[in-house]
Amino acid sequence: MKKLQDLTFAMIGLGLIGGSYAKALKNLKVKNVIGLDRNKVVTLMALDEGYIDEGCLDSLEPLRQADVIIATLYPANLVEFVREHVQYFKQDVLFTDVTGVKSNLLEQVDALLGAGRDFVSGHPMAGREGKGYGQSAAEIFNGANYIVIKREVNQPEHVQWLKDFALTLGCKHVVEITAEEHDKIIAYTSDLPHVLALSLVNSASLTPNTKYFIAGSFRDATRVADINGPLWADLFLYNKVGVIAEIEQYKKELDKWEQLLRADDKQGLLEYMEAAKQKRKDLFNAKNYR
Amino acid sequence: MKKLQDLTFAMIGLGLIGGSYAKALKNLKVKNVIGLDRNKVVTLMALDEGYIDEGCLDSLEPLRQADVIIATLYPANLVEFVREHVQYFKQDVLFTDVTGVKSNLLEQVDALLGAGRDFVSGHPMAGREGKGYGQSAAEIFNGANYIVIKREVNQPEHVQWLKDFALTLGCKHVVEITAEEHDKIIAYTSDLPHVLALSLVNSASLTPNTKYFIAGSFRDATRVADINGPLWADLFLYNKVGVIAEIEQYKKELDKWEQLLRADDKQGLLEYMEAAKQKRKDLFNAKNYR
Repeated sequence: MKKLQDLTFAMIGLGLIGGSYAKALKNLKVKNVIGLDRNKVVTLMALDEGYIDEGCLDSLEPLRQADVIIATLYPANLVEFVREHVQYFKQDVLFTDVTGVKSNLLEQVDALLGAGRDFVSGHPMAGREGKGYGQSAAEIFNGANYIVIKREVNQPEHVQWLKDFALTLGCKHVVEITAEEHDKIIAYTSDLPHVLALSLVNSASLTPNTKYFIAGSFRDATRVADINGPLWADLFLYNKVGVIAEIEQYKKELDKWEQLLRADDKQGLLEYMEAAKQKRKDLFNAKNYR
Repeated sequence: MKKLQDLTFAMIGLGLIGGSYAKALKNLKVKNVIGLDRNKVVTLMALDEGYIDEGCLDSLEPLRQADVIIATLYPANLVEFVREHVQYFKQDVLFTDVTGVKSNLLEQVDALLGAGRDFVSGHPMAGREGKGYGQSAAEIFNGANYIVIKREVNQPEHVQWLKDFALTLGCKHVVEITAEEHDKIIAYTSDLPHVLALSLVNSASLTPNTKYFIAGSFRDATRVADINGPLWADLFLYNKVGVIAEIEQYKKELDKWEQLLRADDKQGLLEYMEAAKQKRKDLFNAKNYR
């Protein structure tokens, strides 16, 4: 691979995540960044602000120059985009994604790319509230974890490149796992917290008066209910087996609560809380999380 | 009632909440604030910092001067404290609390106080992370909701005084409800979010590797797992009927998720998320919450 600054990048999608890559690439003084968004106004804005050097407005021809393509698309759109536009991809392009669920998407994309083009799949655990280009920022990568999917089909130098690139972006840890492991873990660490937040707001217990009785715990517990529905419908459905398993696992904890409460088991409650407190401390004191 | 500044206040407990009252009272230029904490070092510190004018160190005699007593004790300690020390309360004292669960505590305290002494129960929906005097701050009341418990036994002028006092502290809304309503609503808006956070951390899905896969949603969803166990064991147990009811209600939402996912019902998921998003927006746009 050429030096980072001399590679030509193409950003497919310039939303919160895609825009953040474009901004980070410019911070890193990459000379040539091509950008494309389904909303042309966004492409024009990124051009105007200088975060991309060339925009795909009326044609995808500029993609032919890209050494690295980073697709920041919704799961359902990833395969579709490759199917429709693979003819513009260089024969030896390094193709990567940020998709929050892997399922069987990788094999579908592989089949469309054909030999030579290498799909090294990734998932930066980076983000922030809101959505869209206006919310994008190079800083979202600072201190974040970056998952790289471990696959036999990939060229080792490309995998190494993506791992190095993640650290260059400012990420703190790169972890390599299989697509199956990814989806299983994400069902717990990301899908489940979203399910919980949405369920709390949608509980039949919510009334017009609820607003007078909320404090920090309710606010924190429901923050992500301000959700990008179309994206998350895909994430949940592509990972439905894992999500259902996590919900079932979680219900067991709720059952424990009911048992402890019914038994007036103060000691049991204290131990339950102490265990959770300690686990969370370990999780965040590990300094693997900003 | 005398002018606020001329009343003698006694703070029973100088932790996060009690210390915050003491600091707020001094901001309001109240001339005489008596303080008492089971930890004498805390009492000495509050004296040294000038947030209280007199501390109960070796005797509770100073309490005899108090026109208003604000008890910021754990539920189980509230009744116990009144039982042991009611002889130091003025015959016409206005006694108030901040207890997060009301249950049958109010009647127990009434019986101990006897006629003349008036227990107007309250619950400021104010707080912050951590615990103890060191975390206390007058600002926790700013923009918060303050619940006043509606009871026939109280003197109307005392109830009005507490409502006015809450606004003077900086609270934005005062709501009057019965003890039963209080506990029912708090089971949903406060107890349940704590149950959910603790359960997420304690799920069997957590492994030593989880730390590499967490982003904002998991962090937010588990923030309150850093919990004051002895306090919350009381809050949960005194409100156990309500908490169990809320857990049961919540499980119905989780069941809906499983149905939607099993049925691959994308439209249903979109509608579910949209409803939650809208409800949360209404909740927080109502500007009844800081």
